[in-house]
Amino acid sequence: MADGWMAARQAAEADWRGAHITVADLGEFGLIAAMKALLPAGTAQLVGIGDDAAVIRAPDARVVATMDLLVEGRHFRRDWSAAFDVGCKAAAQNLADIAAMGAVPTVLLVGFATPGDVPADWALDLARGLAQEAARAGASVAGGDVSSAEAIMIAVTALGDLAGREPVTRGGARPGDQLAIAGVLGRSAAGLALLKAGLAEPAVLVAAHQRPQPPYDAGPQAADLGATAMIDVSDGLAQDLGHVAAASGVRIDIDTTRLAGDPQLAAAASALGADRLGWALTGGEDHALAATFPPGTELPARWSVIGAVAAGRGVRVDGGSSPTHSGWDHFR
Amino acid sequence: MADGWMAARQAAEADWRGAHITVADLGEFGLIAAMKALLPAGTAQLVGIGDDAAVIRAPDARVVATMDLLVEGRHFRRDWSAAFDVGCKAAAQNLADIAAMGAVPTVLLVGFATPGDVPADWALDLARGLAQEAARAGASVAGGDVSSAEAIMIAVTALGDLAGREPVTRGGARPGDQLAIAGVLGRSAAGLALLKAGLAEPAVLVAAHQRPQPPYDAGPQAADLGATAMIDVSDGLAQDLGHVAAASGVRIDIDTTRLAGDPQLAAAASALGADRLGWALTGGEDHALAATFPPGTELPARWSVIGAVAAGRGVRVDGGSSPTHSGWDHFR
Repeated sequence: MADGWMAARQAAEADWRGAHITVADLGEFGLIAAMKALLPAGTAQLVGIGDDAAVIRAPDARVVATMDLLVEGRHFRRDWSAAFDVGCKAAAQNLADIAAMGAVPTVLLVGFATPGDVPADWALDLARGLAQEAARAGASVAGGDVSSAEAIMIAVTALGDLAGREPVTRGGARPGDQLAIAGVLGRSAAGLALLKAGLAEPAVLVAAHQRPQPPYDAGPQAADLGATAMIDVSDGLAQDLGHVAAASGVRIDIDTTRLAGDPQLAAAASALGADRLGWALTGGEDHALAATFPPGTELPARWSVIGAVAAGRGVRVDGGSSPTHSGWDHFR
Repeated sequence: MADGWMAARQAAEADWRGAHITVADLGEFGLIAAMKALLPAGTAQLVGIGDDAAVIRAPDARVVATMDLLVEGRHFRRDWSAAFDVGCKAAAQNLADIAAMGAVPTVLLVGFATPGDVPADWALDLARGLAQEAARAGASVAGGDVSSAEAIMIAVTALGDLAGREPVTRGGARPGDQLAIAGVLGRSAAGLALLKAGLAEPAVLVAAHQRPQPPYDAGPQAADLGATAMIDVSDGLAQDLGHVAAASGVRIDIDTTRLAGDPQLAAAASALGADRLGWALTGGEDHALAATFPPGTELPARWSVIGAVAAGRGVRVDGGSSPTHSGWDHFR
């Protein structure tokens, strides 16, 4: 089956993209071989792609592990996002979950279910995106699975190493703590709104939607600074902080005057007649990190204080009630 | 969202199964809460379901990791397999991959994409099956993700610990080694053939298709016995041994006279006019373990010698050529 793919590849050689080779033309093993060729082994891999399972270094003797699904039509559209971008995004959202525990990502495992008539280059560009974003986090793709399906679905598992740190959960925030974020808020949501309106500017916002760039190393940094709780902002700041408030048994107050004024967001809001603050509070997918720190912790510039923790429950925005049910529910 | 589910659950209380509650009725967070309640935490979990990522013990300082996809209509049919069985099977095939490296499974992560109109009980029975089979292997479900989708898709990642053993890859078989298997061969394929023919007997074969029971502890046992190569038989014995032959640079000879005579298989073959040996050689999904051992290794009774390793390449059955392309390709 890999032989069939090699023959097809050689025949197409100079005009691969024009050859209309599909995933089904490659076959299961040809597809795996072609993707594997684009996924360099990382230093954490002792056994990588091609055996029953991968063997990965876990020097801390604990491993941090997370999984996210991306479903075509739900999480991405092929007409709005290139395969490379889908690969970057699939990697980013899982790597950010590892960082949000205070850990350093080591590897990804990738499950790729696809209709057979999807162009082979779509699958290969997906692999390129996965590899690039994994490398940005110091990780690599160490294994996975492929299958046929009616629609594209991508399952990504990320593993990480704590390097001796205690994991930073959602449950440790205490009244008096500072609330701070690293990364950007609302840019992905604004980029999506621009795409829906058929606009391509500001390009930096469209790019933020297509290829979010979470600040991975801010996660271990927060752990080293003594963060009491941390979360990856994936469903919207208000909703995600609601999880921290619930797990910690506290109230979290957001001060929107301290959400950094983002001139690009303002420009997009003006062009679309939209609510800039709504994007920042309820837009997900930027994968900023939100963390709480003990009072008096001196934070590096990348961590912006945007609120505080108090006794009570729930999330308050500027002293008012929180925008409930404002984030994402896959079945609503 | 969990509130909505609780209200629905209380309203349905005495007649849950008759109430036609769907996954969409539960909502994303209600579904996660309901599944979590059926997934007891295991001893390997330091942080389990409900944070950005799980934290799992990895005492060996290496972690074994694998992922498989199950797609409705490809890997299972809802009219042939109950959700509980799908859960068992999804767990089994991943846990077997961990065992095939010589490791002990620790946890599963489960991604569950589903149409919103699937009955909530289908999802909960899936969780019950996952939990039961994980427990049979000494593991537990430590995290995952849910999403809506047009068809059900289940992604399972399994992690395991080597406990100081060297991983047994596919690449170490040497000429002169014995070839042995632990577990059953062909029963799942025979069970599927019975189901396709509308037959329910022999029931043990139908059950083998619905709930394969891999011999997980035979994996670490083989490693301790000095196995040179090992593989989980998931795509058919001949095809999977082809992977071992290729990775090891050897030829593998199967002696079919030594494939244990299975009276149940014989009965099914007779009833269907089918080829008993074909099931054993090309049927996958029993998740037997096939391993090679140095000559002279004394093997416990559960390991049946069925052939040998020689110089050369490929797989030979009774001295003849191998049944090529006889196993499973998802796109062919």
